[in-house]
Amino acid sequence: MSEKKLMVFQTDFGYKDSTVAAMYGVVKSVDRDLEICDSTHELPQFDIWSASYRLWQAMRFWPKDTVFVSVVDPGVGTARKACAALTEDGYYIVTPDNGSLTHVKHYHGIREVREIDETVNRLHNAGTDETAVFHGRDLFGYCAAKLAAGVITFEEVGPAYDPAEIVALEIPQASYTEDTASGIIEIDDPNFGNLFTNIYTKDLLSHGFAYGDQVSVRIVHGDETVFEQNLPFVSAFGNVPAGDPVLYNNELMHLSLAVSCGNFRDTYHIGFGSEWNIEIRRVL
Amino acid sequence: MSEKKLMVFQTDFGYKDSTVAAMYGVVKSVDRDLEICDSTHELPQFDIWSASYRLWQAMRFWPKDTVFVSVVDPGVGTARKACAALTEDGYYIVTPDNGSLTHVKHYHGIREVREIDETVNRLHNAGTDETAVFHGRDLFGYCAAKLAAGVITFEEVGPAYDPAEIVALEIPQASYTEDTASGIIEIDDPNFGNLFTNIYTKDLLSHGFAYGDQVSVRIVHGDETVFEQNLPFVSAFGNVPAGDPVLYNNELMHLSLAVSCGNFRDTYHIGFGSEWNIEIRRVL
Amino acid sequence: MSEKKLMVFQTDFGYKDSTVAAMYGVVKSVDRDLEICDSTHELPQFDIWSASYRLWQAMRFWPKDTVFVSVVDPGVGTARKACAALTEDGYYIVTPDNGSLTHVKHYHGIREVREIDETVNRLHNAGTDETAVFHGRDLFGYCAAKLAAGVITFEEVGPAYDPAEIVALEIPQASYTEDTASGIIEIDDPNFGNLFTNIYTKDLLSHGFAYGDQVSVRIVHGDETVFEQNLPFVSAFGNVPAGDPVLYNNELMHLSLAVSCGNFRDTYHIGFGSEWNIEIRRVL
Repeated sequence: MSEKKLMVFQTDFGYKDSTVAAMYGVVKSVDRDLEICDSTHELPQFDIWSASYRLWQAMRFWPKDTVFVSVVDPGVGTARKACAALTEDGYYIVTPDNGSLTHVKHYHGIREVREIDETVNRLHNAGTDETAVFHGRDLFGYCAAKLAAGVITFEEVGPAYDPAEIVALEIPQASYTEDTASGIIEIDDPNFGNLFTNIYTKDLLSHGFAYGDQVSVRIVHGDETVFEQNLPFVSAFGNVPAGDPVLYNNELMHLSLAVSCGNFRDTYHIGFGSEWNIEIRRVL
Repeated sequence: MSEKKLMVFQTDFGYKDSTVAAMYGVVKSVDRDLEICDSTHELPQFDIWSASYRLWQAMRFWPKDTVFVSVVDPGVGTARKACAALTEDGYYIVTPDNGSLTHVKHYHGIREVREIDETVNRLHNAGTDETAVFHGRDLFGYCAAKLAAGVITFEEVGPAYDPAEIVALEIPQASYTEDTASGIIEIDDPNFGNLFTNIYTKDLLSHGFAYGDQVSVRIVHGDETVFEQNLPFVSAFGNVPAGDPVLYNNELMHLSLAVSCGNFRDTYHIGFGSEWNIEIRRVL
Repeated sequence: MSEKKLMVFQTDFGYKDSTVAAMYGVVKSVDRDLEICDSTHELPQFDIWSASYRLWQAMRFWPKDTVFVSVVDPGVGTARKACAALTEDGYYIVTPDNGSLTHVKHYHGIREVREIDETVNRLHNAGTDETAVFHGRDLFGYCAAKLAAGVITFEEVGPAYDPAEIVALEIPQASYTEDTASGIIEIDDPNFGNLFTNIYTKDLLSHGFAYGDQVSVRIVHGDETVFEQNLPFVSAFGNVPAGDPVLYNNELMHLSLAVSCGNFRDTYHIGFGSEWNIEIRRVL
């Protein structure tokens, strides 16, 4: 049984060249026995909201003590802080402090956060001192590897600062009446084109909705209604015929939209973010 | 030397978000020392034929005792069985029983198959009991991890059922005369655009064809002839000039079509499946 | 601490089917404890220049003794040599000798190179003796695994030949005057669309250019000027507003072009290779 901490990486670097390999080479040069797991390297470029959401989406399923490295970093080489955070429930995240901790801060809570001390926890003597544009390799990956391997303690990452100062985006909350739930399309499933709302299924159920109901679904983008249809509210999209749109409880217990064996996002041209509002209404 | 079984995963989940990471987190939470290998997460969506073919394509090259997890599961949350199978030659597969075992059943043979007992071999207490749409994480990945780690025996997966009951698609067989071989385009090489037929090269050779021959190749889609040309029959596509189409013996010992340094599928707009018939004829 | 050598793979096989999985299965069948790291499997198809560049780009960051396997091999099954090379600084590369060693030979130096003896270091008894088209699995992967596992010594790979005979492409060199630097667009960053030149930033700095300067940048494709603009020369693209083009020092200490939070290559339709010339001129 290894005593080293597991490492899980997510970035927007893509996997088409050896950018990721250079970063992982640095990790394995810190400690040959570190275990690296890919989350994804295909986050939407420069999209800090997605970085934050995806980090939160997977974290809870990993063993405590795992070190996550998240690098979506449009401000690399500028003033944004580079940090390592420890959640209330015992996970580590090494990341630019640019909003990437939004969901984890909100849902897990941050017990402690430290700014990476570049004088000791940045890669040196590798011929890369002069570059400021690949902190995934030279700073985040390197520092996280030292932490995961036990070369440094969490305290040795650098000076602590107040978790309240962590940069966080707004997470819009859903609202409910007896007959309606109103929220936003929070994010998509980029593979199947399902759309995840910020409405909790349990909250819908507690307001008298039930699986098997037909419900009215309206999506508004800015001022324009872009989708309006009655849909079945079901527990799994496989319960309706292929090609049918459906409202279902997704794997994160959020109310979501799918087309069975199809792609809701592409079929109806729906995006995500705070501009994309959704209203679910009971059909009497 | 680890005593844990190797795990190999293939899905149609894509690698653009942390869906795969959530599944792997569950595996590492069952046993930190399990070794996870990606086969592919980019199987064509909902395409059970491809899942079955790809599983078979790689399996023989892995050590016996490896646990494969295959999740192409358009019927997730519905009545299809979730199972673990043991092949005649000692590989394990954890998968929906929806046709994904077609090729492995035909070519390896299934010694034993068991329906996963969800009461004990589904993830619980992770806040996901209420969802029915991510069995890769909550059922297949979790159960396979327990099996690979030795937490459960194969018998403890759940009750055995008759391997003859395993859902299997039809695998069309090629036919031969002295001058011809007739079959289908069974699948493509999605990367290079080569097309694999269900005609065995050795059967062609045993009917008097020889490397170096010019042969007549005709592809018929439904009623329409979509390709008809004399091609060289060679052992490697590098033997003809770049840009030339060629008939060759592929890495699975099937007769295949390629364009040297090109893409046969895209150049000639050819698909695969039982609707895509091919006839190879000796040129006298 | 494992005594086995790390293995790092790069190919143009894609990750859409189980081609890579078959290759890795062979590796794990040689030795269950070998550790496989992906560099990339999405190299541009048949592009030996990219294979060579990407190999060099990542190599220095890995521990010495690592075994790299590079398979971009349009001539598979033909006369090109299959080889294993040992660099002056102690890395191994197993690859077709088709130009893939160009950059590593130039920048690291090759201490010793051996032609793989197929009679002993090719996979046999796996039912694949008759195929000549998947040397990644049957030859390079298999031989590299034996080398990494210590099943064979480097000498047992096969007969040595003169490193001077290694196939190498031309690497164009940049030239400088007091006011100008002239070079080529050497390669792109396929993910972000940054363009890497063959001009070293330190050489530009030593000719009197300085960060913060405005410089004139002209890109000529063949005879045609395809880009001509004054750009800021900065240390990180985050130093200019999103959407602005910029000249910066990249992660390999080469002068490069980016659009901040954008894509230079796609915005200005620029490619790479010896046909794409760039001139940087001091603005007085």
